[in-house]
Amino acid sequence: MDLKIELKKRADFFNTQLEKFMQGGSPETLYNAMRHLPLADGKRLRPVISMISCEAVKGDVIKVMPLSIACELAHNFTLVHDDIMDKSKMRRGLPAVHIKYGEPTAIIAGDLLFAKAFESMHKTTVDANIFKNVEYGLIDCIREISEGQQLDMEFEKRKIVSEEEYLEMIRKKTAVFFQYAAEAGSILGGASSGQSNALSQYGLNLGLGFQIWDDYLDISSDLETLGKDIGNDIRNGKKTLIACHCLKNAAGEDKKILDKIFGNLNATDEQVKKVYSLFRKTGSADYAKQKAINFANTAKKALNVLPESDAKQILASLADYAINRKK
Amino acid sequence: MDLKIELKKRADFFNTQLEKFMQGGSPETLYNAMRHLPLADGKRLRPVISMISCEAVKGDVIKVMPLSIACELAHNFTLVHDDIMDKSKMRRGLPAVHIKYGEPTAIIAGDLLFAKAFESMHKTTVDANIFKNVEYGLIDCIREISEGQQLDMEFEKRKIVSEEEYLEMIRKKTAVFFQYAAEAGSILGGASSGQSNALSQYGLNLGLGFQIWDDYLDISSDLETLGKDIGNDIRNGKKTLIACHCLKNAAGEDKKILDKIFGNLNATDEQVKKVYSLFRKTGSADYAKQKAINFANTAKKALNVLPESDAKQILASLADYAINRKK
Repeated sequence: MDLKIELKKRADFFNTQLEKFMQGGSPETLYNAMRHLPLADGKRLRPVISMISCEAVKGDVIKVMPLSIACELAHNFTLVHDDIMDKSKMRRGLPAVHIKYGEPTAIIAGDLLFAKAFESMHKTTVDANIFKNVEYGLIDCIREISEGQQLDMEFEKRKIVSEEEYLEMIRKKTAVFFQYAAEAGSILGGASSGQSNALSQYGLNLGLGFQIWDDYLDISSDLETLGKDIGNDIRNGKKTLIACHCLKNAAGEDKKILDKIFGNLNATDEQVKKVYSLFRKTGSADYAKQKAINFANTAKKALNVLPESDAKQILASLADYAINRKK
Repeated sequence: MDLKIELKKRADFFNTQLEKFMQGGSPETLYNAMRHLPLADGKRLRPVISMISCEAVKGDVIKVMPLSIACELAHNFTLVHDDIMDKSKMRRGLPAVHIKYGEPTAIIAGDLLFAKAFESMHKTTVDANIFKNVEYGLIDCIREISEGQQLDMEFEKRKIVSEEEYLEMIRKKTAVFFQYAAEAGSILGGASSGQSNALSQYGLNLGLGFQIWDDYLDISSDLETLGKDIGNDIRNGKKTLIACHCLKNAAGEDKKILDKIFGNLNATDEQVKKVYSLFRKTGSADYAKQKAINFANTAKKALNVLPESDAKQILASLADYAINRKK
């Protein structure tokens, strides 16, 4: 089983369904702005996870497509608005929506993606009571993502963030959506409550592992290839797990360097590199790496209750991939 | 029957329910930002219309409260985002959310209001199939409002907008929400399809009348008390029904004045007053006034199929009020 091929097969199928759903609409400029990001490709992790979770309980994947589309559109809605808030200029190799269409249209395009996500959900053909339950999960998810985005912004302005606070922030901002995609996909596939709980735990821990590994990847790249993003994250005082750990454990001269540079918008490249080295010296990078591995292992263990299947293997491989990928 | 007392009675009841629903939440800054506008009072037209429409079909008003709250929150969500787009500084006599909390938190607060609107809808206790139908209406409504807001922005940049285009824009931007509140309120009250269709037509025409009367009010105020908003609308080339009519019917010297000043950001106060006078001279203000009256009358006629009740009388009075109010 080749994970990449299995994921791509599903992403391709998903993309044809998504394109069909996203056709037309007037005024054209607004609908083009709305389509800009979702049709610009992307990893499609959330929809694909919902599809494989459905398969893992022997469900019919076609029945889960309205949910899969809803997950991707809701995710894109948060990205369009996040890019405005963060003043990001690029996304998926293209100009961000607000750069291409202006901020007012980008705000509405995000709102419209939100509405279209729920429009897609309504195409689900399950019993209305199950629909209600599954749809409520998406609402709850978006509430938590909003809270997570706000926490992320607030943490940048704080001196110290505890590990527990950091984990709660990424749980809300990232992991709940993985959790939702896996759980809801299995429910629409006809999962028993034991199975859907297992997939919920799988998604949650996978999401946590994914996010922490992202932080780790950023910091474990070669000093020479130190990207602009890392520099910005250090200057902005972005509280990754690595930063939280380092802020707690650095002492003496290290602590002084950290206090002076981390969160200092005017820090030089040379200073940024010092903090970057410190993250490794204090063992903070390794600490985060181990945490990511632990979450991925917990995700895999949750799969035990499922019957053997290709889908189950793909989910396990995805958890391995989450903490082995180089980008 | 005193319309103001009847509306206030319901708005007061609504406000206590809304306040209860809006309590708590973390992070606190985000939830305070989210509460800022909804708890800053307001006319509560949409929720009150949903309540009276429920009463008009002999429904139990308590059952409609989750919908009433959803309508108000969804309306406030659009206002929070509109104020960012329009760079408005004040709303309901208070600083706009983005002025008080900054733009990033205001964008998330709007998104959260959207999510909370659907969270409230989910508290409806009707049969799941009816719930699904009524909730889909709200999604559709938000889609149309997004389209309407985009049209409104695009029209400002265009030279000519036809009356049909203008009516379609305000139908989407304003009237569909009145239509939805009336129709959905009646459905949750147990309306027959004849009754809910009638209330749908009532809401639609009331909304159109309300919006056109707003345009008319702005322009019919005394030249001396000419507000800043009118000046801005003329400088921005805002396509009200009055402007659309005047642009179509002005000729000769009038046409030249209009072409020179309307939509000219650098127009002087003196020039703005010329256009303002022209709106009356061409009969455009009177034309819009008559249109508003016609829509209000159509709204009242739609009520004919309903049984006699206090609620029916209040709805009729509200239609009269829409085209008689001075502010």
